[in-house]
Amino acid sequence: MRDGNCIFCKIANGEIPSATVYEDEIFRVILDLGPASRGHALILPKEHFKDLCEADPATMAKILPLAGKIGMAMKEKLGANGFNVVQNNGASAGQTVFHLHVHVIPRYEGGPVMVSWTPGEEEPKELEKIAEMIKKGL
Amino acid sequence: MRDGNCIFCKIANGEIPSATVYEDEIFRVILDLGPASRGHALILPKEHFKDLCEADPATMAKILPLAGKIGMAMKEKLGANGFNVVQNNGASAGQTVFHLHVHVIPRYEGGPVMVSWTPGEEEPKELEKIAEMIKKGL
Repeated sequence: MRDGNCIFCKIANGEIPSATVYEDEIFRVILDLGPASRGHALILPKEHFKDLCEADPATMAKILPLAGKIGMAMKEKLGANGFNVVQNNGASAGQTVFHLHVHVIPRYEGGPVMVSWTPGEEEPKELEKIAEMIKKGL
Repeated sequence: MRDGNCIFCKIANGEIPSATVYEDEIFRVILDLGPASRGHALILPKEHFKDLCEADPATMAKILPLAGKIGMAMKEKLGANGFNVVQNNGASAGQTVFHLHVHVIPRYEGGPVMVSWTPGEEEPKELEKIAEMIKKGL
């Protein structure tokens, strides 16, 4: 299914041009126009899924192996020392385009910290309680 | 394969106790001891892979469908509004434990921004050049 108003549907299906790194029947991988670092790529399924909650398992299964290949190519060809894989679900998680996409962000020695958080503290008993709550949803 | 010195090998295989959200033959999902938010979970393969570059495709294929299920349970049972999936490869990418792990971080309305970057700018011609470089590594 496609969404006629979705810009990532148009890009993934080649109706809007993009710097394409990889394409097959299921995905197009493009370079982000506002890159976090040199070579920042986006894996876009051609089919429209809002996020991971909507995506079909067969498509999801193919994403991380592809992200690994893209990341290794970034290390080999761009001189990256590592890479982050980031996927945001929902406006509160920073998702801005509501078409499932996975960021593959090459990282370079001495580059800025882009994916970080301040670790909180939680009592072991509270962790057990939260774990039980999540389990009930599985 | 296991690495006898790896703390995540010990946690994933139950030698060190953890607040476990989910377990099967391939993975253990635990709550992070230093959570970015309430319910912050880590998907750990029981087998030792340093990162995505080392992981076998069959294991990688199962991770995002599992992350989606965990994220949906966080929305249903913890009242999260969204979630981030984050996976870091290499010290320069912020990886601190060198056993492949995938963060699933629930996000709550009005919570702090934890996964963000300042978008850079890149000329379309430069983007095409970089895309060609990455392609050669695929």
